[in-house]
Amino acid sequence: MTKATASPQRPLVMVDWGTSALRAAFARDNQVLQTRHSDQGILKVPTGGFPHTLQTLCGDWLNEPDALCLISGMAGSAQGWTLAPYCPCPAGEAELARHLHWIAPSRIALVPGLSCEHPHAPDVMRGEEVQILGTLQLHGLRDAQLVLPGTHSKWVTVRDGRIAHFSTFMTGELFAVMRQHSILGRTLPEMSSDEALDGEHFDQGVRLSLQGGSLLHHLFGVRTLSLMSRASPSALTSYLSGLVIGEELRVQHLSAGSTLWLVGSAALQTRYERALTLLNVKIQTLGDTATWTGLMALAAPLRQISP
Amino acid sequence: MTKATASPQRPLVMVDWGTSALRAAFARDNQVLQTRHSDQGILKVPTGGFPHTLQTLCGDWLNEPDALCLISGMAGSAQGWTLAPYCPCPAGEAELARHLHWIAPSRIALVPGLSCEHPHAPDVMRGEEVQILGTLQLHGLRDAQLVLPGTHSKWVTVRDGRIAHFSTFMTGELFAVMRQHSILGRTLPEMSSDEALDGEHFDQGVRLSLQGGSLLHHLFGVRTLSLMSRASPSALTSYLSGLVIGEELRVQHLSAGSTLWLVGSAALQTRYERALTLLNVKIQTLGDTATWTGLMALAAPLRQISP
Repeated sequence: MTKATASPQRPLVMVDWGTSALRAAFARDNQVLQTRHSDQGILKVPTGGFPHTLQTLCGDWLNEPDALCLISGMAGSAQGWTLAPYCPCPAGEAELARHLHWIAPSRIALVPGLSCEHPHAPDVMRGEEVQILGTLQLHGLRDAQLVLPGTHSKWVTVRDGRIAHFSTFMTGELFAVMRQHSILGRTLPEMSSDEALDGEHFDQGVRLSLQGGSLLHHLFGVRTLSLMSRASPSALTSYLSGLVIGEELRVQHLSAGSTLWLVGSAALQTRYERALTLLNVKIQTLGDTATWTGLMALAAPLRQISP
Repeated sequence: MTKATASPQRPLVMVDWGTSALRAAFARDNQVLQTRHSDQGILKVPTGGFPHTLQTLCGDWLNEPDALCLISGMAGSAQGWTLAPYCPCPAGEAELARHLHWIAPSRIALVPGLSCEHPHAPDVMRGEEVQILGTLQLHGLRDAQLVLPGTHSKWVTVRDGRIAHFSTFMTGELFAVMRQHSILGRTLPEMSSDEALDGEHFDQGVRLSLQGGSLLHHLFGVRTLSLMSRASPSALTSYLSGLVIGEELRVQHLSAGSTLWLVGSAALQTRYERALTLLNVKIQTLGDTATWTGLMALAAPLRQISP
């Protein structure tokens, strides 16, 4: 009893609320004690249903005395709970903390996404910023180049502990829509979550895109190689994956000698690591498990229990 | 009566059998006398149903004494009537005529598509070759660079009256699938066949792609410009169109001073002409109506009536 009341920090409920799923964790001090999972991503929550969904999954945690709740991810988008306007780059923990969007004052807040400006258009992220901050914290980094591959891959430059700049690439989404909805899909196997990689054909795709030319042309080769029976459907799936990842890598400014931090799922790490090896880039791979660390770092200044 | 029997050439039935529709024409000598249209594209014809579909639409023409019938387009693909293997480039009328795939000996033939080899993959066309031959014939061309914009745009080099080489770009299809099936579609208007072009935003998209960088990144700008309310949905549709067309043009070898022949529908001509003007390319625009001319040129040596 004595030990619990002596705790110097408020209990923390952390929610990573994405488009198709929802993860939550409960922490005392800096220890994650419990995690939960739900399929109630923002697209499945009915209008006005966010408070109820959160209560159902995490009600007991939220009822802890002095509990603080931070929610990151798409819950802060216009399609989510409510819009938490983007925080402009450069941004680190301090800037994000100032831009928290409070739903219940000093109890429940949405973490804003980040925005930055390119000459032609703005760029945005929502959810990745927490993962990035967690990665920096876990590895004691203050200056780094990171890539978070995925549906919308993010290439991120960190300077002096803050996210200075980033660029998004629709690599994963283009791969998926071309495969599922274009003529290429007619001769490729159905998508599945654990596809074996054909390394040789993947590398061929990467190399071709790195050479230049246009993806609009290279993509058609997936069709013709199949029409001419020059590669199997599963080999061509790897080739297509290599083409789009190679196209993403083609335009990066990768300084020789410096390290690129690769943050993602095991399956994507394998592919990006393989492709980056062709470019002789030095890589450090990290799991995509830094979200709770990032949210705890962000919450730290808010968890002092008032005397 | 005397005049008809004195006709020096066999009557000609021409069929342009595509994926989603079917056009047919009947010619005596070099005059197209009648045309017909049907929605029975190859995807709608049941297995084994091609002879019946052709008979239903053109039976009276086929019953003319000595009638010859040439069928071009996707009817010669593996999903069509039967596979007419590709004729390799370089190819002109003589090569195509030698590769005709006879269904009823000396009466009904499928026109093969063309193939050519790139270092990384083969390229193919099926149907466009007839339109190209017709265009050459109509304009007395023997050496030319042509572009046929569309779902799969074709860039074609003609030398000495034959198609020497070509490259396909999935420009139209990528535009359509990203718009209909990716996150970009959430903030763009539904597709329609007669969309007004926002010239200013179209040009912005073209210019950005011509500058370089990657389409995978530029596409995401369509999303962020909308999120930040910096352009209207219809303006962004034109911007997206400009991005993909600019990407197609970025990698072409367009020799200054020479003429590019632009063969396509009015709507696409407007867009390509506008984009090519930004590159100072000299253009000649042509309608997409040369198919019958091309088929007549191909049929000419076969139409002598045996004495």
